[in-house]
Amino acid sequence: MTGVDTIFEPSSVILIGSSRIREKVGLSSPQLFKSVIHNMKKFFKGNIYIRDVDKEGQNIEGLMKAPELAVVMLPPEKSIVEAEKFAKMGVKAFIMITGGYKDEQRRELFELKERYGVRILGPNTVMGVINTANGLNTTFERDVMPKRGNIAIISQSGGVGACLLDWACRYKIGISKFAFMGDKIDVDDIDLLRYLAKDKETRVICLYMEGVKNGRKFIEEARKIVAEKPILALKGGITQESAHRAKSHTASMAGSDEIFNAAFKKAGIIRVEDPEELMNAAIALSKQPPMFGDNIAIVSNVGGPAILAADAVARNSLKLARLSDETKRKIESLYPGMDATNPIDMIADARADRYEKVLDLVLADKNVDGVLVINMLKSCFFEPEDAKVIPRVAAKYPKKPVVDVAAGGEDFELVYGVIGESNIPVYNLPEKGVKALKILRAYGKILEKLGKSRKPKES
Amino acid sequence: MTGVDTIFEPSSVILIGSSRIREKVGLSSPQLFKSVIHNMKKFFKGNIYIRDVDKEGQNIEGLMKAPELAVVMLPPEKSIVEAEKFAKMGVKAFIMITGGYKDEQRRELFELKERYGVRILGPNTVMGVINTANGLNTTFERDVMPKRGNIAIISQSGGVGACLLDWACRYKIGISKFAFMGDKIDVDDIDLLRYLAKDKETRVICLYMEGVKNGRKFIEEARKIVAEKPILALKGGITQESAHRAKSHTASMAGSDEIFNAAFKKAGIIRVEDPEELMNAAIALSKQPPMFGDNIAIVSNVGGPAILAADAVARNSLKLARLSDETKRKIESLYPGMDATNPIDMIADARADRYEKVLDLVLADKNVDGVLVINMLKSCFFEPEDAKVIPRVAAKYPKKPVVDVAAGGEDFELVYGVIGESNIPVYNLPEKGVKALKILRAYGKILEKLGKSRKPKES
Repeated sequence: MTGVDTIFEPSSVILIGSSRIREKVGLSSPQLFKSVIHNMKKFFKGNIYIRDVDKEGQNIEGLMKAPELAVVMLPPEKSIVEAEKFAKMGVKAFIMITGGYKDEQRRELFELKERYGVRILGPNTVMGVINTANGLNTTFERDVMPKRGNIAIISQSGGVGACLLDWACRYKIGISKFAFMGDKIDVDDIDLLRYLAKDKETRVICLYMEGVKNGRKFIEEARKIVAEKPILALKGGITQESAHRAKSHTASMAGSDEIFNAAFKKAGIIRVEDPEELMNAAIALSKQPPMFGDNIAIVSNVGGPAILAADAVARNSLKLARLSDETKRKIESLYPGMDATNPIDMIADARADRYEKVLDLVLADKNVDGVLVINMLKSCFFEPEDAKVIPRVAAKYPKKPVVDVAAGGEDFELVYGVIGESNIPVYNLPEKGVKALKILRAYGKILEKLGKSRKPKES
Repeated sequence: MTGVDTIFEPSSVILIGSSRIREKVGLSSPQLFKSVIHNMKKFFKGNIYIRDVDKEGQNIEGLMKAPELAVVMLPPEKSIVEAEKFAKMGVKAFIMITGGYKDEQRRELFELKERYGVRILGPNTVMGVINTANGLNTTFERDVMPKRGNIAIISQSGGVGACLLDWACRYKIGISKFAFMGDKIDVDDIDLLRYLAKDKETRVICLYMEGVKNGRKFIEEARKIVAEKPILALKGGITQESAHRAKSHTASMAGSDEIFNAAFKKAGIIRVEDPEELMNAAIALSKQPPMFGDNIAIVSNVGGPAILAADAVARNSLKLARLSDETKRKIESLYPGMDATNPIDMIADARADRYEKVLDLVLADKNVDGVLVINMLKSCFFEPEDAKVIPRVAAKYPKKPVVDVAAGGEDFELVYGVIGESNIPVYNLPEKGVKALKILRAYGKILEKLGKSRKPKES
């Protein structure tokens, strides 16, 4: 096992903090220490040791075997002293939670890594690491644990990571790993990408980054991975002013935005603009196949939102599919009076049965590469339970992506409650559903470029 | 009282439907009829009469006085017959809920209006009208009634209107009036704008439109209104294909998107791109003053989201305010170690007291035109109750807009629970908070152009 593996999959962990020290800067506090202990005890399936530097008589040296991983929550000076002690003892990897390190102190930490061959995540990771498979959870948000799933999130920033974690918890989004990188004196994006590339639990990798050190290597590494797993990136610090803040925030050079755009493109990384887009895109990629064509069909029980979806299709460089005459004839003969021109308005009294039949016919059409389903409850006869037909029909066409839109606030939550955990991504606005398809198309194009296109068989 | 006033403020209403007829197209059904009766009985403060066309012996003609408003929920043919009967009796205004009208039938309805001097909303309004002040609610969503407030929504589409209504209910957004226009054979955008311009309950007007008949008049009317009340517009049908659907949807010509852009600009109408943007913009305009300058300060307890907000400031053509030396000095002397360069990262342990002092200093700075506050809970020490200082400090500077961002899912709901009903708009992403400020700036520019700028006094 490499050091980076140990960061996520240790058999034993020692938590190092203080029950007394509280620092203004850098987060160290007895409260944080207690909370991390609480979470680890609650969730982690391996062995836990606790070292409170203020408690006398703790015979840590007497441990039969060194723990594999140490989580350090002390102010910089003390953190370094403790880390050295445990590196000597044989601890393989360190997560440095607290921040406030001066350049000199970051150098000392780096020397430790060199001297003992250990791996170090941080400092200033703030939340450290979550692994939903073994329950490792070094965050200090009590009882916060996302659902197990296949989306991995790497965040350079504690705050943005926390925002993504919060989103994942609120909408029960399946997560494999969370890693907060902080100042990256050792373990960086490239190490984590390599680890996640091999991780069987992970199908989609999300990155929040403010800067990257070895750009060329980063691009190379990403290119290798995207043939198997999509990578999404949100980049913070696109302007001079925000880049200035990024420098003081995580000690990273943000670099020009155009350079990043070119690098992401070269690497086959899909760029998104905000945390919600990142999560929505990850959900789409984790649940649905890439899209190998631009042609979208819209199947809706309401006219207006279908029109907004059609507008969004155009705005997002996709196309409205032209349904074959056969498909149109079949739909119109099943439902006289319905105009089966895409976007299809099945009218406000459409229930499960009509959704099932129309969706099936539309997915079977060779002119269609992906489908956006809209089901509203308000102003319609649709009931939340009716939504169950959507994953059922979609499963018959595993090579064509299907996303669902339950437009609004209450309606969204009702439909999400029924199919939110199915393989169908559900969004609360037509625009967001279309953007999800755009992401699936973007990944399809990346695979096509790599010669990995899997154009669906014509039916 | 004009006929349009009667549509919103009738003293008495007759509900006309059938306990038997159920049509495939156009929504008429006994279920819909029952639901509208249910809502009207539950919410409406005036007199209600019910006419079931299938019930014999209903001596409607024996009413001492004709009701002022009739809500008609029958198929086209029967709707016209009933409408004529009641127009003769002296009913002043009609809301035609059901759709499925042929051109010929729309003409018949229009002739009725001409002959009897009545006003007609619809047909195909689907949901009709909501007035939160008198409890008028002709929608068939049982028990759905938004909170009373000062945002008016006019929607040409039932579905988009329903989506907005749903959003308003979910997030307890204060609504004055809802009107679903449908096919607009008589009452149109212009009539409704005129009505809402005078309506004391309404401070912000939101429009969802697919087409407009008398463009020049519409622009003139809007221009008069925006000096007093902002108008927001979401336009459906921007492409040829979606315009085709709009034509069959609400019988309206969508027209070229560029023409609408020019028209909105001329009219001083602020255009938005999706229903969520519309609601978010309306909330900002209903709670905060317009912004008379481009300079945004960001006050945050997390670094990453502040950087994303700064990026969004640039993307939305706003500027990061350069704080005066005095402001920076004051902040930095209060909190040694803090870098008071905008965006200001107050660090993860900031609580109410630090927010209060820093926000106060920033708002007092003459270089600042508006403030985005970010308060995260996860990864921070901030507690939901701490958010209460934000409306309190903002109230001291009534001419500078302040919006709040609680980034994420759970965090957002917790903070929203505390200050969601205050005068501070709360958003779940930095990007959305910045867009709200952009809308306030857009309205500020419209007022400046009209010579109505109210540049805040320098402090």
